[in-house]
Amino acid sequence: MPVQLDIDELVGRARDGVPRAIARLLSLVEDAHPRLPEVAAKLTPHTGNARVVGLTGPPGVGKSTSTSALLTALRAKGLRVGVLAIDPSSPFSGGALLGDRIRMTEHATDPGVFIRSMATRGHLGGLSWATPQAVRVLDAAGFDVVLIETVGVGQSEVDVVKLADTTVVLLAPGMGDGIQAAKAGVLEIADVFVVNKADREGADATVHDLKQMISLVRREIRGPSWRQPIVRTVASRGEGVEDVVQALDEHHDWLVRREELPRRRAARARDEVEAIAVQRLRAELVDLRSGDRLAELAELVVARKLDPFAAAEELIADLRGS
Amino acid sequence: MPVQLDIDELVGRARDGVPRAIARLLSLVEDAHPRLPEVAAKLTPHTGNARVVGLTGPPGVGKSTSTSALLTALRAKGLRVGVLAIDPSSPFSGGALLGDRIRMTEHATDPGVFIRSMATRGHLGGLSWATPQAVRVLDAAGFDVVLIETVGVGQSEVDVVKLADTTVVLLAPGMGDGIQAAKAGVLEIADVFVVNKADREGADATVHDLKQMISLVRREIRGPSWRQPIVRTVASRGEGVEDVVQALDEHHDWLVRREELPRRRAARARDEVEAIAVQRLRAELVDLRSGDRLAELAELVVARKLDPFAAAEELIADLRGS
Repeated sequence: MPVQLDIDELVGRARDGVPRAIARLLSLVEDAHPRLPEVAAKLTPHTGNARVVGLTGPPGVGKSTSTSALLTALRAKGLRVGVLAIDPSSPFSGGALLGDRIRMTEHATDPGVFIRSMATRGHLGGLSWATPQAVRVLDAAGFDVVLIETVGVGQSEVDVVKLADTTVVLLAPGMGDGIQAAKAGVLEIADVFVVNKADREGADATVHDLKQMISLVRREIRGPSWRQPIVRTVASRGEGVEDVVQALDEHHDWLVRREELPRRRAARARDEVEAIAVQRLRAELVDLRSGDRLAELAELVVARKLDPFAAAEELIADLRGS
Repeated sequence: MPVQLDIDELVGRARDGVPRAIARLLSLVEDAHPRLPEVAAKLTPHTGNARVVGLTGPPGVGKSTSTSALLTALRAKGLRVGVLAIDPSSPFSGGALLGDRIRMTEHATDPGVFIRSMATRGHLGGLSWATPQAVRVLDAAGFDVVLIETVGVGQSEVDVVKLADTTVVLLAPGMGDGIQAAKAGVLEIADVFVVNKADREGADATVHDLKQMISLVRREIRGPSWRQPIVRTVASRGEGVEDVVQALDEHHDWLVRREELPRRRAARARDEVEAIAVQRLRAELVDLRSGDRLAELAELVVARKLDPFAAAEELIADLRGS
């Protein structure tokens, strides 16, 4: 017999800050539990208070260490912090990797900190679908700051900028030349740049390159009046982390002052509603005649008897007829 | 007055291998031109002959150089090769970067080679939507091999494995420790591993780590009887590239022998049809009442008067009613 799921009680306990209840709700999100809509409905009235900070950057820049150092700094200010470590890169293996688990232990005994690794594998719609739900859980659970950490190459960092009020892009010296950095595509999405491992050779060059790149990137993307700061850190020793916190505060003030915060949040809600609706329709398409219809049309495409657009047309016609 | 677009003539000239016609068709794909379905219908009967090879790996492993070396080796065998360099990482800047353009010049005068950089920015559905269309163009234009090169961290390499008959994952020494490599999520998708820059310190360690990781990864993903080979190259000097070509041939033989090729292509067609249909439905959702409906619902979510699932429900109801 499945365990009875008392959503009301679970939400209530999560709002009281009970870690196991929060974890349980996040598992419902990860599993795309059928009662998730009910959960979202119960959580929504209690949301909107958390500052959502995205933290991204290419592998090897020290994201885990930086998150940990940032956590320490935010905790010192008395803020409760929830962390979502999103791993969009491993769709098959299912589960966060060792690195994420290791650093959890550092804050394991702190009740003002909640860290969760989420693999977005398998999820149709991936990050864009599951992460806002997870943020909603932590927001409703009363965390002052929700940090979303994700590997920042590819689509993931574009998704993270959509989710966050403020996006921090981490870089490190010796990550490759300027072109490679630009390829990583992280320049345009940053509200705050952090050059970590700033005690290493090449840090000055990285900051210099970054300044040049920033000047090349269309400013309007970040809003006309915000100048992306570049903060140097040595996260492993906690150096410069205070400056990161200050940059975050300044950006938040700017968001509020420019009425950019409600704009970003409306855009986020728009994406989320769209993602959920698309997800629903996609599921219906795939389910048509228990999935046979799509497979059938695919065979016709492989046999070159139908082009994929015509096949898609037929699929949609079937959906409307169903 | 817009230039008259003669699809029949364009397809005919592309099939004759006229580079400008091929380029034009690819631009139609990139622009998501309204007459794309017509183009696909005309191209489809002439497709199915090209071997589609995906090439992915984290930034800095020498993907551009490897692609170029591979091109040279395949050309030496008399094969015509089309290259799609996909840059999913830069959604805003619009356009491929310098590195891609530089290496094009090397093969610029060879009529048996066609190279195109595509930014998948902006495209809803990104890679999964546009790339199969671009592959179809090159396939119909008679290229024996279509190489899809993409930055391999995040969702992009998952998409590339779906598109390719054979996926090559490039790594290089000193890309970070084993955990980082695993995070890059490239281990599970490789049919062939290439350790490039194999003359550098740490190459043996990388190969060793890779072997260990391979043994940890669930084998069945790649098919029970295929053992992922690890090829060492120094692409900048062309070393080992013949071995890569041989590994590609062996994998292709295996695909054919095991009847895995039609299976992969059916899966690919299925994804493509699904992506096109989802794209269509998404466009309809977003367009409801000129986009006002989604914006309206998003505002209600931000105001916490509606949760996003309920909002999505209403959006879909509107779609059905429209």
